[in-house]
Amino acid sequence: MDNNNLGRHISGQFNVELEDVRSQVMAMGGLLEQQLNDALDALQHGDAETARKVMSADRKINSMEVTIDEECTRIIAKRQPAASDLRLILAISKTTADLERIGDACVRVARAVIDNKEGNRKGLLVSMEAMGRHAARMLHDTLDAFARMDVDAAFRLHKEDRKIDKEFEAVFRQLMTFMMEDPRSIPGILDVMWAARALERIGDRCQNICEYVIYFVKGKDVRHMDTEDMEDLLR
Amino acid sequence: MDNNNLGRHISGQFNVELEDVRSQVMAMGGLLEQQLNDALDALQHGDAETARKVMSADRKINSMEVTIDEECTRIIAKRQPAASDLRLILAISKTTADLERIGDACVRVARAVIDNKEGNRKGLLVSMEAMGRHAARMLHDTLDAFARMDVDAAFRLHKEDRKIDKEFEAVFRQLMTFMMEDPRSIPGILDVMWAARALERIGDRCQNICEYVIYFVKGKDVRHMDTEDMEDLLR
Repeated sequence: MDNNNLGRHISGQFNVELEDVRSQVMAMGGLLEQQLNDALDALQHGDAETARKVMSADRKINSMEVTIDEECTRIIAKRQPAASDLRLILAISKTTADLERIGDACVRVARAVIDNKEGNRKGLLVSMEAMGRHAARMLHDTLDAFARMDVDAAFRLHKEDRKIDKEFEAVFRQLMTFMMEDPRSIPGILDVMWAARALERIGDRCQNICEYVIYFVKGKDVRHMDTEDMEDLLR
Repeated sequence: MDNNNLGRHISGQFNVELEDVRSQVMAMGGLLEQQLNDALDALQHGDAETARKVMSADRKINSMEVTIDEECTRIIAKRQPAASDLRLILAISKTTADLERIGDACVRVARAVIDNKEGNRKGLLVSMEAMGRHAARMLHDTLDAFARMDVDAAFRLHKEDRKIDKEFEAVFRQLMTFMMEDPRSIPGILDVMWAARALERIGDRCQNICEYVIYFVKGKDVRHMDTEDMEDLLR
């Protein structure tokens, strides 16, 4: 028996399994982009029907999380990967958990559209929707960086989150002003505020995923590392 | 050479490593209980000094997360565990991530104490501190269930989160009433509201950890499962 061929065969099978689980993550990511864009469309047009669609599609995302994570565990147990293969599987498992939480944020936005009529004030929607679209672009680019395991893009996107934080602060101040001007609007505006906060948190989730890309490529856990140290690592 | 002895030796070493990483998680959990109790004491007495102590200790928690997670990856790569050993390591890694986020919640509460004088209204503090103490008990009991991998306790605690959610709703309504009565207090009360929300989220994190305990013991991922299905599984 040719051990070399066997080795190739095993490795080939392993590659197929890795590729398969990676493509499942990409499919989950694609569905989340759809969810987020739908939630933002619902917000823009006050469209409760689209919002309800977002809420019911969240189940699919939850079950994708469980399926992908089980597959990761199965691969680790069966293939006993080390080094970069193991890092890839762990990065996939963690990414899936963050994607699922982005799904929860979409649900939060959708629920605000359904529960709430206060959100339909014009000025309020414009700035919040702009922040949401920014988060959607960040999600798209983050999934792209993940697909290509592009460490430079991951690092650039990691810094992008600051801009979304600043946009959230502006939205937050605006909402606060509305509340102070018209205290009766407080309950409705608080709903909108939670939704804005959920959109802002999408940036944090994308930042986490960027950290897993850097972890996979560089073999270094960069969570809680400051930007300068991260720059040194990537140089 | 006695293979049986070798097997025992390897397994013995492995057990030592597993026990070591488990005890690191327990140490991290102990530190978090301290952080949460300190944050609540700071809240209770408006004590900015204790709040600052909480904020600076968070670094230690962040670095524990990274260290424990690296150790988990090292054990997987070196020991190539399967079945329950692998589940234990994955449960530990995920628990660590949730513990770190509980640390962020403590920081959020501490920051509200430092930034904010509105929080010192008597009625507001009483209900929020009570909710926080409830979350602290849930954290304590969850860490206990994790230490003993007690699936029945984990299931009982999993349901406990609903009570904290209800307490949060009551606190939230109370804060909203204060805001409507006195719109000038809105900015300060919003800070308190974020802190209350952070305390409520500690219950969710504990719930996650309970799910990892059930996953370890039962070999089944129960995330997103409803309570009835979970009950069936445990019967």
